[in-house]
Amino acid sequence: MSATVTVLGLGPMGTTLAHAFLDRGHRTTVWNRTPGRAEALTAKGATEACTAAEAVAASPLTVLCLAGHDAVRAVLDRAAEAAGGRTLVNLTSGSPMDARETAAWADRHGSAYLDGVLMTTTSGLGRPEALQLYAGSHATFDTVRHPLSALGTPLHLGTEPALPSVYDTALLSMLWGALTGWLHGAALIGADGPGGNVAATAFTDVAGQWLPTVHAFLRTYAGQVDSGSYPGGDFTLRLHQRTLGILQHADALRGVTSGLPELVGRLTDRAIAEGHGEDSFARLIEFLRESGAA
Amino acid sequence: MSATVTVLGLGPMGTTLAHAFLDRGHRTTVWNRTPGRAEALTAKGATEACTAAEAVAASPLTVLCLAGHDAVRAVLDRAAEAAGGRTLVNLTSGSPMDARETAAWADRHGSAYLDGVLMTTTSGLGRPEALQLYAGSHATFDTVRHPLSALGTPLHLGTEPALPSVYDTALLSMLWGALTGWLHGAALIGADGPGGNVAATAFTDVAGQWLPTVHAFLRTYAGQVDSGSYPGGDFTLRLHQRTLGILQHADALRGVTSGLPELVGRLTDRAIAEGHGEDSFARLIEFLRESGAA
Ligand SMILES: NC(=O)c1ccc[n+]([C@@H]2O[C@H](COP(=O)([O-])OP(=O)(O)OC[C@H]3O[C@@H](n4cnc5c(N)ncnc54)[C@H](OP(=O)(O)O)[C@@H]3O)[C@@H](O)[C@H]2O)c1
Ligand SMILES: NC(=O)c1ccc[n+]([C@@H]2O[C@H](COP(=O)([O-])OP(=O)(O)OC[C@H]3O[C@@H](n4cnc5c(N)ncnc54)[C@H](OP(=O)(O)O)[C@@H]3O)[C@@H](O)[C@H]2O)c1
Repeated sequence: MSATVTVLGLGPMGTTLAHAFLDRGHRTTVWNRTPGRAEALTAKGATEACTAAEAVAASPLTVLCLAGHDAVRAVLDRAAEAAGGRTLVNLTSGSPMDARETAAWADRHGSAYLDGVLMTTTSGLGRPEALQLYAGSHATFDTVRHPLSALGTPLHLGTEPALPSVYDTALLSMLWGALTGWLHGAALIGADGPGGNVAATAFTDVAGQWLPTVHAFLRTYAGQVDSGSYPGGDFTLRLHQRTLGILQHADALRGVTSGLPELVGRLTDRAIAEGHGEDSFARLIEFLRESGAA
Repeated sequence: MSATVTVLGLGPMGTTLAHAFLDRGHRTTVWNRTPGRAEALTAKGATEACTAAEAVAASPLTVLCLAGHDAVRAVLDRAAEAAGGRTLVNLTSGSPMDARETAAWADRHGSAYLDGVLMTTTSGLGRPEALQLYAGSHATFDTVRHPLSALGTPLHLGTEPALPSVYDTALLSMLWGALTGWLHGAALIGADGPGGNVAATAFTDVAGQWLPTVHAFLRTYAGQVDSGSYPGGDFTLRLHQRTLGILQHADALRGVTSGLPELVGRLTDRAIAEGHGEDSFARLIEFLRESGAA
């Protein structure tokens, strides 16, 4: 089923979006402030509009992918009339407040609106695992889910337009933790040691097969966070403390330092000192909240 | 196809192993230093042996799951004669050196030997995603892969017996990073903010769907680590620095502190100061190796 879509903004990501729509056979109109960026796209069948207003008028759905919120406002103000009665999907990164302001603008101009974030880079876009997070009305999401699925898997988070931005930041926090812990592991296993120098690719192949177990821990701990009760089962903070000691010993032998085991160790030691040694890792959230951890 | 297996050690994990073997229809003999732990297992069809030597003699394959290396040596020394010509799989946690010593013991006594670690807790054991890491000869691994698959997915890492212990520590480093980053994200998204208080379970559902993308980053960066070249693509250290600033701003507004964004920020700032701003995150491994990071 072919849809009709407009893309505003032909930076690296906007261009990739437009290609993904074209590759799925959607009729695609594109526009960029600076002309001359659309050649490969028009060669594939895209129509290049001369103004943003013309581009918005060409499709029931317009996707904005611009450098920032100021650009979004500047472009929308010049396409305001065409936007009425149409759907805008804003994939420009911004703050929760930016998302709310653009949602309010859409409301004033009679446009249906979704705020969104793409949780991938240009090279990941279009794959089924490329996650896109959206907020806005359910009805609007249902209308545009099909064309958006050209970009990956679209998820609807709720109606509050700030949600994608808020999730983006929280997910990046998880990414940085995972990247740092993984990099530390890769440095350790790649150093001269009893296992020989294990290649990072070999380590990462195993690490990837372990991610479902990591996810199982997260799911268990998420339920504990929501209920405020943290039974340790067979992976108590005391066991974390002991195995962290093993990691730090290996770090010292191999000359690896990231600061991560020490950070987790400080949190764990403190929770144990306050009597939570038999609780799970999830108990540590209470020490993050009260701002007394680092 | 039913196998014949012995389990030495009926602590929480040993008992869970024995149940998993029985549940798959394997003929299972069990032994524990302190008798009286096998009731539920014998009710299910297990045979309880009175001595470790008797237990080892009962099956071509014996799995050891004891409190530590000292226990392994104490038990094996009393079952040395029976162990000759049989296969021992040691799932007792220990250091790389412990693994090598036990492998050497097996060699001296004419036993085939695999060292292994279970990368899960008792509640995860037996599920297909439960990862087990083994080292030893390929031929031995091939012989016992079938019965071991009752416990989850067995992977063969190589012949060096230290490998499972080494991987275990490196994978735990990744786990701690992921857990800490996730917990930080859960604290942030659960605090009063523009998205409302998002439940940890809702956040974690989305986070789980994002893990394939996290894995894609790890795979890309692993190749870069192995080649020593770190092209930043569209996720450079400079972009990390900017988005880390957004996270720290949100942390300050919501009163969340873990120390993690600051740790990653210090590494990133330093790499940028040394001229690597256009490189990827993987470049940071060079700062972990030289022990100058924290
Ligand atoms: N690249 C990625 O991997 C990635 C991943 C996730 C999210 N994103 C987000 O996607 C959005 C676009 O990113 P990008 O990588 O494609 O490139 P970008 O450099 O962030 O944005 C470039 C686009 O913004 C336009 N623009 C800037 N100021 C403008 C203004 N005042 N009026 C009209 N247009 C203006 C540019 O037009 P000109 O050509 O005329 O300058 C160009 O089309 C950003 O919000 C980014 O955070 C990108
Ligand atoms: N539980 C988990 O989730 C988990 C996960 C991964 C790995 N592991 C590893 O699995 C192994 C077993 O763990 P576990 O949780 O089942 O319990 P555990 O408390 O680590 O080990 C208890 C077992 O060790 C035996 N034992 C201790 N000292 C002994 C000795 N000197 N001679 C003979 N037997 C001795 C105990 O016998 P008695 O009953 O006679 O004391 C009991 O069978 C450990 O190495 C652990 O690190 C456990």
